[in-house]
Amino acid sequence: MLTNDKLAEWDRESFFHPSTHLGQFARGEAAQRIVTGGEGVFIQDRDGNKLLDGFAGLYCVNVGYGRKEIAEAIADQARELSYYHAYAGHGSEASITLAKMVMDRAPKGMARVYFGLGGSDANETNIKLVWYYNNILGRPEKKKIISRWRGYHGSGLMTGSLTGLELFHKKFDLPLAQVIHTEAPYYYRRPDLNMSEADFTAHCVQSLEDLIAREGADTIAAFIGEPVLGTGGIVPPPAGYWEAIQKVLDRHDILLISDEVVTGFGRLGTMFGSDHYGMKPDLITSAKGLTSAYAPLSASIVGQRMWDVLVQGTDENGVIGHGWTYSAHPIGAAAGIANLKLIDELGLVKNAGETGNHFWQTMREAVGDHPNVGEVRGEGMLCAVELVAEKDKRQFFDASEGKGAKVVAAMLKRGVIARAMPQGDILGFAPPLCLTRAEADQIVSATKDSIAEVLG
Amino acid sequence: MLTNDKLAEWDRESFFHPSTHLGQFARGEAAQRIVTGGEGVFIQDRDGNKLLDGFAGLYCVNVGYGRKEIAEAIADQARELSYYHAYAGHGSEASITLAKMVMDRAPKGMARVYFGLGGSDANETNIKLVWYYNNILGRPEKKKIISRWRGYHGSGLMTGSLTGLELFHKKFDLPLAQVIHTEAPYYYRRPDLNMSEADFTAHCVQSLEDLIAREGADTIAAFIGEPVLGTGGIVPPPAGYWEAIQKVLDRHDILLISDEVVTGFGRLGTMFGSDHYGMKPDLITSAKGLTSAYAPLSASIVGQRMWDVLVQGTDENGVIGHGWTYSAHPIGAAAGIANLKLIDELGLVKNAGETGNHFWQTMREAVGDHPNVGEVRGEGMLCAVELVAEKDKRQFFDASEGKGAKVVAAMLKRGVIARAMPQGDILGFAPPLCLTRAEADQIVSATKDSIAEVLG
Repeated sequence: MLTNDKLAEWDRESFFHPSTHLGQFARGEAAQRIVTGGEGVFIQDRDGNKLLDGFAGLYCVNVGYGRKEIAEAIADQARELSYYHAYAGHGSEASITLAKMVMDRAPKGMARVYFGLGGSDANETNIKLVWYYNNILGRPEKKKIISRWRGYHGSGLMTGSLTGLELFHKKFDLPLAQVIHTEAPYYYRRPDLNMSEADFTAHCVQSLEDLIAREGADTIAAFIGEPVLGTGGIVPPPAGYWEAIQKVLDRHDILLISDEVVTGFGRLGTMFGSDHYGMKPDLITSAKGLTSAYAPLSASIVGQRMWDVLVQGTDENGVIGHGWTYSAHPIGAAAGIANLKLIDELGLVKNAGETGNHFWQTMREAVGDHPNVGEVRGEGMLCAVELVAEKDKRQFFDASEGKGAKVVAAMLKRGVIARAMPQGDILGFAPPLCLTRAEADQIVSATKDSIAEVLG
Repeated sequence: MLTNDKLAEWDRESFFHPSTHLGQFARGEAAQRIVTGGEGVFIQDRDGNKLLDGFAGLYCVNVGYGRKEIAEAIADQARELSYYHAYAGHGSEASITLAKMVMDRAPKGMARVYFGLGGSDANETNIKLVWYYNNILGRPEKKKIISRWRGYHGSGLMTGSLTGLELFHKKFDLPLAQVIHTEAPYYYRRPDLNMSEADFTAHCVQSLEDLIAREGADTIAAFIGEPVLGTGGIVPPPAGYWEAIQKVLDRHDILLISDEVVTGFGRLGTMFGSDHYGMKPDLITSAKGLTSAYAPLSASIVGQRMWDVLVQGTDENGVIGHGWTYSAHPIGAAAGIANLKLIDELGLVKNAGETGNHFWQTMREAVGDHPNVGEVRGEGMLCAVELVAEKDKRQFFDASEGKGAKVVAAMLKRGVIARAMPQGDILGFAPPLCLTRAEADQIVSATKDSIAEVLG
């Protein structure tokens, strides 16, 4: 560990942090934390604090911190071959092995995997492939992408457009015109409180049908969705949602992109969320859980019907004009191999289901009856606690009160990291998949005490 | 090293390679190469071939292969802390230290550095920042981006639009409407052979002025360009080009993005190409040379006038809605620190200038008089040999003859990797910056013999 008294100062003066209040941070008004290490579900900072990370970084350190197996795999790969590109049929032993391992774990019907760096670039690849697909099929007008409000699909210009959250649009001129949004499958925020879950699913389906009718199915190329809404609020879909949506897409010949950056490789207690909900995707987006964030790597997993057209496309047009210099980076691939092995060896998919369910059900029992807790929801190792001003009327707090952020700050004092989700007063939890019941109980206890501190 | 007889088969069946002919590769008709290691300017493949890499991967392995200092820095970081996010003021010792090191090396007038993963996402960040900047300044109409034909700025939807090459547009519906292109500063391909270099610079400036007049300066936000055109043909600008362009941009209040993914951190014999040509960028894009590709990392270096507006923006609107999960990844940051130290210790910036100039001047002497060599050009450790059917008339070969690719294939038989640039019959060279004169001579000799073999 470095000990450098200037580090804090260098940070304020040099470093443009993502998703940060730049003015406050530069002036020293906003918090700074320099993380130095981690072990299991805990991280440690330079000031000696040890914190239980209830969000696994950004829902990504799925196997937990400090895994020597992955660190040594990275070290070995760095010594052997840190980099060679993957263009024009080049590969490394690590990238090819990981390609095989991903395909072995992917849902049925998938044909190939393209490796990038992170979730945003994987969705960028996906949209390019969708457009290419319809150009090769001679349907140049079939290009619009339907996403859902509150979906999160990245932070680029196109991927931030797919994202259906105000924070990522405001002042950036997004969404771009090629992206249109439909209803979020968010039962707690249903337009009419009298709707049953089945009613609300039917309402979501009708909204989608109406949008398709309005725009014309022959202008719509694909529908993108997370199996469980993530950054939009951690919201499992209402009963029957994906089955019903899938039928609409099939009828209109609209491709399905399942964005599994959060759910891929085990978080729901199944290897993929697409399997969990019976989705039949043409493309699967994956990143975080693929390497547990030990090194950057993303995957676009391509289904057979799309792959066949990509082959036709290069037979007709030659080399496909798409690639990142760091596609299939050997360091990321080595991390991915070690990570997927560890997930198997430690039985983390099973644990995500079992301990995850224990976690959010215990959370529901502990805080569900609080007058300012509107809903506690979860699926696998994902949980959200939604705060409200008045429970019976489902009346939300004014955003300016920052109630969610205040509870999260109170939890931090208790040594537990939760995330104040960006739209609504929603406490988000996505711990490492290796969470134990005792650690789950510690998060629940800190949540309960912090809600009591902030909201009474 | 793995020895797995199935590796070649897994590769064909599972792996979607970037910039590859997908059909030919899947059917086993296109070449496959599994790279297993490297040392200095040489790579080694699984079949025992040792090749002199005259393109440093994809102009990125600037310090050369097999550098133990970087491998051990990656290994140490992986053991200490592989990952924590950089959102909301979080950092690691490595990411903060690297931020400081980048700012110490950046041209004057730069204020902060944002870290991403690769060049494409850095340009994605840059365009978002440019739009944000003009929204904060209350100029919502000032949004178009001018790029140059033959520029290379990435392979995403927006960044592929900035790129001015057919391969990256065709069948992908690019460029998007927000991007407009102007004349490539490519003297050898000047429209009128009678133009002097100064005439041609004036012509490029006039083309830009005409474009701005046509579109309206109040609709144009930024101009993006590589100091030396890279993938578009490895073309240093004509004399006086950047000085003249800079004046036009200043007059119309148009921001300058200097895309230094190829030129940053030493390739031209100067730390940045912006310094080399006296450019005054508002944003600098960097990736490849930042880590020599040992781990993925990119940097958007933000100038003071833009930073001041970003601070104003977050003061008015709160947290900036931009971030990648893997922004400022600790493994990339550790690689970056070790890489920049090595560049200094080995004097690679100086060597890029000196040995680089020796390299392309020797190349010019060796093949410049060949009847099918139209031009040999270079700057620092970059060199291109442009092939032509008829030298006097500057008549190019028909693309379908694939003359450039044939010469590159002939070089490979001689153990030297060059790149057939994608638009034109142009042999591209961008060796590691540690190239020696003897290695330079080996590339020149292989080039000469291969041109003779293919073209007589």
